Amino acid sequence: MSNTVDRTNVTDTNDEVAEVADVTERVDTGPIDVRPGADRIDIEAVRRLLLGSWPEERLASRELAARPEMQKIEGQPYPEHRERALEQLRMLVEDGQVHRAFPTRLGGEDDHGGNIAGFEELVVGDPSHQIKSGVQWGLFGAAVLHLGTEKHHDAWLPGIMSLEVPGIFAMTETGHGSDVASIGTTATFDEATGEFVIDTPFRGAWKDYLGNAAVHGTAAVVFAQLITKNVNHGVHALYVPIRGEDGGFLPGIGGEDDGLKGGLNGIDNGRLHFTGVRVPRENLLNRYGDVAEDGTYSSPIASPGRRFFTMLGTLVQGRVSLDGAATAASAIALQIAIEYGSQRRQFTAASDSDEEVLLDYQRHQRRLLPRLAQTYAHTFAHDKLLVKFDRVFSGVADTDTDRQDLETLAAALKPLSTWAALDTIQESREACGGAGFLAENRLVGLRADLDVYVTFEGDNNVLLQLVAKRLLSDYSKRFRGADAGALARFVVEQAADRAYHGSGLRSLGQTLKDFGRVRRSVGQLRDTEVQRELLTDRVETMIAEVAQRLRPATKLGKAEAAALFNSQQNELIEAARAHGELLEWEAFTEALEKTEDAGSRQVLTWLRDLFGLSVIEKHLAWYLIHGRLSPQRAQAVDAYINRLVARLRPHALDLVHAFGYEQRHVRAAITSGAEQERQDEARAYHRDQRESGTAPIDEKALAKPGRPSLTV
Amino acid sequence: MSNTVDRTNVTDTNDEVAEVADVTERVDTGPIDVRPGADRIDIEAVRRLLLGSWPEERLASRELAARPEMQKIEGQPYPEHRERALEQLRMLVEDGQVHRAFPTRLGGEDDHGGNIAGFEELVVGDPSHQIKSGVQWGLFGAAVLHLGTEKHHDAWLPGIMSLEVPGIFAMTETGHGSDVASIGTTATFDEATGEFVIDTPFRGAWKDYLGNAAVHGTAAVVFAQLITKNVNHGVHALYVPIRGEDGGFLPGIGGEDDGLKGGLNGIDNGRLHFTGVRVPRENLLNRYGDVAEDGTYSSPIASPGRRFFTMLGTLVQGRVSLDGAATAASAIALQIAIEYGSQRRQFTAASDSDEEVLLDYQRHQRRLLPRLAQTYAHTFAHDKLLVKFDRVFSGVADTDTDRQDLETLAAALKPLSTWAALDTIQESREACGGAGFLAENRLVGLRADLDVYVTFEGDNNVLLQLVAKRLLSDYSKRFRGADAGALARFVVEQAADRAYHGSGLRSLGQTLKDFGRVRRSVGQLRDTEVQRELLTDRVETMIAEVAQRLRPATKLGKAEAAALFNSQQNELIEAARAHGELLEWEAFTEALEKTEDAGSRQVLTWLRDLFGLSVIEKHLAWYLIHGRLSPQRAQAVDAYINRLVARLRPHALDLVHAFGYEQRHVRAAITSGAEQERQDEARAYHRDQRESGTAPIDEKALAKPGRPSLTV
Repeated sequence: MSNTVDRTNVTDTNDEVAEVADVTERVDTGPIDVRPGADRIDIEAVRRLLLGSWPEERLASRELAARPEMQKIEGQPYPEHRERALEQLRMLVEDGQVHRAFPTRLGGEDDHGGNIAGFEELVVGDPSHQIKSGVQWGLFGAAVLHLGTEKHHDAWLPGIMSLEVPGIFAMTETGHGSDVASIGTTATFDEATGEFVIDTPFRGAWKDYLGNAAVHGTAAVVFAQLITKNVNHGVHALYVPIRGEDGGFLPGIGGEDDGLKGGLNGIDNGRLHFTGVRVPRENLLNRYGDVAEDGTYSSPIASPGRRFFTMLGTLVQGRVSLDGAATAASAIALQIAIEYGSQRRQFTAASDSDEEVLLDYQRHQRRLLPRLAQTYAHTFAHDKLLVKFDRVFSGVADTDTDRQDLETLAAALKPLSTWAALDTIQESREACGGAGFLAENRLVGLRADLDVYVTFEGDNNVLLQLVAKRLLSDYSKRFRGADAGALARFVVEQAADRAYHGSGLRSLGQTLKDFGRVRRSVGQLRDTEVQRELLTDRVETMIAEVAQRLRPATKLGKAEAAALFNSQQNELIEAARAHGELLEWEAFTEALEKTEDAGSRQVLTWLRDLFGLSVIEKHLAWYLIHGRLSPQRAQAVDAYINRLVARLRPHALDLVHAFGYEQRHVRAAITSGAEQERQDEARAYHRDQRESGTAPIDEKALAKPGRPSLTV
Repeated sequence: MSNTVDRTNVTDTNDEVAEVADVTERVDTGPIDVRPGADRIDIEAVRRLLLGSWPEERLASRELAARPEMQKIEGQPYPEHRERALEQLRMLVEDGQVHRAFPTRLGGEDDHGGNIAGFEELVVGDPSHQIKSGVQWGLFGAAVLHLGTEKHHDAWLPGIMSLEVPGIFAMTETGHGSDVASIGTTATFDEATGEFVIDTPFRGAWKDYLGNAAVHGTAAVVFAQLITKNVNHGVHALYVPIRGEDGGFLPGIGGEDDGLKGGLNGIDNGRLHFTGVRVPRENLLNRYGDVAEDGTYSSPIASPGRRFFTMLGTLVQGRVSLDGAATAASAIALQIAIEYGSQRRQFTAASDSDEEVLLDYQRHQRRLLPRLAQTYAHTFAHDKLLVKFDRVFSGVADTDTDRQDLETLAAALKPLSTWAALDTIQESREACGGAGFLAENRLVGLRADLDVYVTFEGDNNVLLQLVAKRLLSDYSKRFRGADAGALARFVVEQAADRAYHGSGLRSLGQTLKDFGRVRRSVGQLRDTEVQRELLTDRVETMIAEVAQRLRPATKLGKAEAAALFNSQQNELIEAARAHGELLEWEAFTEALEKTEDAGSRQVLTWLRDLFGLSVIEKHLAWYLIHGRLSPQRAQAVDAYINRLVARLRPHALDLVHAFGYEQRHVRAAITSGAEQERQDEARAYHRDQRESGTAPIDEKALAKPGRPSLTV
């Protein structure tokens, strides 16, 4: 550690903070341990913590991703990139890890959580083959597995698992993405031949953005409105051969290449349309709905709405895995920016000859360290999501409520982590300046590939609205019939761990009114319970407020009720975001409890505080408006964040190294050690010149004859 | 306009807002004109306003950018893209507009403002040839023009103007970007031969990221530490031939290709290094510093520091033009998203059969319309910057203070508009969903190309820190020797128009104390003076607070003073941002005064209010902490923004069309009319089915026997 690093510790006193923050109300942030080294983290221990519940699967997948043949070639023209990604899928088959989620009897392992953990780490090699493998085994294969029945498994899964049949997940249409229930493609049962006839009735009903559709896919799971005996039973999935031996479309099928995209160009996205395409009745994936030979429809789920959501719910793993992959990408970006920021120097400030390391600048710390804290929070929250997912899909805990909770949790976390990835990668790229813009330093490629994560597998805004509706519905169930006064007095009685075991409102058991004590008595913003109260209260209050404003809706006509709901849409989505932030904070706090050594626990507590306080700072106006924080207390938040980033700065490298990615994963030219060599060489050159007296005299020194030259 | 659009007007009453916002303190936002059409803008009039002071130059350049051969081919491999961009530069020569800034006697027009206005619009065709032309004529050529003298102009400008000599602006080094004064390259005068000897002393001093360096450049303006008679006179520029007839490097010169980048891949960026490269004494661009035959150094500017900043100041046009180009890119992105959002439908809400247009959703309005308001503000602010630039460079008003003001203004606006461009293009891309991710819809390419605008020609954070230092220095000059009490009582006496005519603190002449009246008496957040007070007060107070905290610095040693300054760095940069936001708001407000027709004035006033209130909302915690807004008033800001976006929604298309870009400029597949056709076709299909009775019966309708089917 350099002198400048030590300086951040030396000046870290209450006096300085009070002066800097100019707070009129003194904030007690507790005693500070300034013993050098006393609070270093145990990198290995933190690494194990971050690896979560499937460490072996993650490490195995990282080994794979470290092989050069599994890595992206930046700038490769997309036709070749597509072939390379297909070749990489073949290597994944050879490796076998992508079969983990499939049935043991077919060569899989029935291991759902481990499968996703391994899948997520593929993003390190190339997000294109990651997502392409997600299309093949996570969507196309998973649809056959979860929507089909044993005969389908036997017939099609072997070819899917071996990649003999590269497949297409044909759900989205040009005209309908988020609103899957309204897709236009029809599958009409023809009793005369015992076949389904698949049709695209208009241009907007073309299937679109489908991976493997432009070139490689030979079969598809096609989602269509199932019509039999002139009744539309809603969206169902059918297995449909698409291309023949010669690679050309089969009769009645047409399509287009989506061409170049903003990223993920190793995937051949494309469009498909169908004109009178016939498939046997047996090709209907019939777990949740079937058509008999005589055209009679039957389903184990009577309600068409519930049936639809159950079918779609089996595909939640896409969202789950994007949450983890996005977080991994954020970690790599931060490792690049923080390593570079720890070596690169610019401008002298504290001395005449020594330039400052970028990460010693407060602004640089404020740009990178809160995002590091956030990435830790996302990592811990993701592991909890993955455990929940595994319990549902393994059947350990898979009630309807469990499934709904899982979907709500995924819908809350995926938007936050995918947006955070774009923000974090971009800030990292800017923090590396011009070097950050070069493809050889990986940040621009990573950002381009991750871009679409925020709108696919559920548009982030739509997902958050789903979460908000769930929160609102949970809330309404509790308060049905209660008047406004009762609402305000109500004690939210949910258990403290309901956040992950349920999905609903997170609370501590206070009355809403009682939150006033935060304002009156909070002594320490770094107190875990204070942070929890502040974050929890905000979610609850926002939902309660919106619920109250929506109460007239029941008495309104459809159009007026829709207008009223629309007037609350922005606030609702913000409430869902607040819920997600609370879940992340809870996960981080829970992880702290698993940290055994004092150094790690201390530093991770600062990092958790930085995360919590950064969230509170983002919504500071809300806390002020609602009287949860006094102006003095609110002002101290910024000062406390400045203290935290200065405290964490000496640990920044340890914290990124704890993610466990090595240079063979990170692969940025500026993290190869070259920057440190350049800095060392330049400093040695200037030092030698000074010491040998060969440096030219600075004109500035000459201009002031009374002042001795710095260089002679 | 659809029914849903009208609905936003119909429900736009004070009662609704009071209910929706749940504000306890009623906000009087004045009477509302709901007559349909009464407040439409005059698109032509607003277009003229947006075109600013050089409309002809902008339109001519747009004509050029509309020619297919001037347009980017998305996904073109970069070696070919580089050749295409060079070819496009040749077409720019033919067209002649890029010669506007050069001397009349050499075939130019001595027209600096018009030159930049035209240059900015080239971003519409392809940002690569725009920036490559900026390298050739705005940096390489401008350095010869502004740092050289007549003999240099005569010798080199004709070849530069004609592109006979593609050139390199060799300033940045691998080790030094923002801190140009510390570059390592040396140019040592050899009295024996009358030559300068150019050397790269270590790897970090390689020139890097230089446009035209990898392939096309045959000469360079090289910035180096000028050393003569063993004295270093600081950074000077020399004209240096780089490549010979055969395209190979001349002796002593080496280099590397920077390879693929995150965008702008039509530019061949590369690295250069020099080993004992000799150029004649006359190759020193000697306007601000010269070396005589005997090695004696002389300069018209005695202070080395001032000389350095004067030389760099001549190159401000890069920042000025990026501000304009980034704003043009934002306008195009918004046109794509708002046109698509006005056609694309998803989910039914207000009826059983009609899906909603995306832009009718409140969230969609909140995502796009504040960014539209911001883009208007940037457009108006940019024109004022350009006028200032033109006055300085034409010599109409070019005192030292004018030059400093220009630099401060550019340094304040360029960061905000370039960051806003990335944010706006990204939000636009997300608002278009999967379609936004396809290269054919332009948003991803535009974002990739604009990315580096935030770190080149001055890293945004560094620029804002420069602005803050200027504000702080202006402030300190006024308060030198004053005690803390005097500071608080001081009346900032600057004239109301000082914002653009000077660069310093913007004020209305109130005492700081007097701002309390905002809290007590403001009746209308939409009041221009209230917005002005709130925005102005924040800049002043932030600077005053930081200044007070920095006062001990004068008594501290260098290291301690640096640490104190560093503790305020984040706040300082935020103060500079606040200053930039105020300048933008002032420019928008001034533009309103030039709006003659009532409809345009009304709608643009809403748009300006949306901009002002959005800025205030972003910093709402500050206003609450500092007692400038009461909690009730602060809460009304969100409600008022919701009202404004609903009011502006029917005008959104008019407002983007007023930018004046046509489909031949915008070129997105989704703005070609195809989406509207698809929607019309799908709606006609469903309508025909309903009317003819051929639609299958919905199972949901069957499931409830008591309820009539919707479709029979």
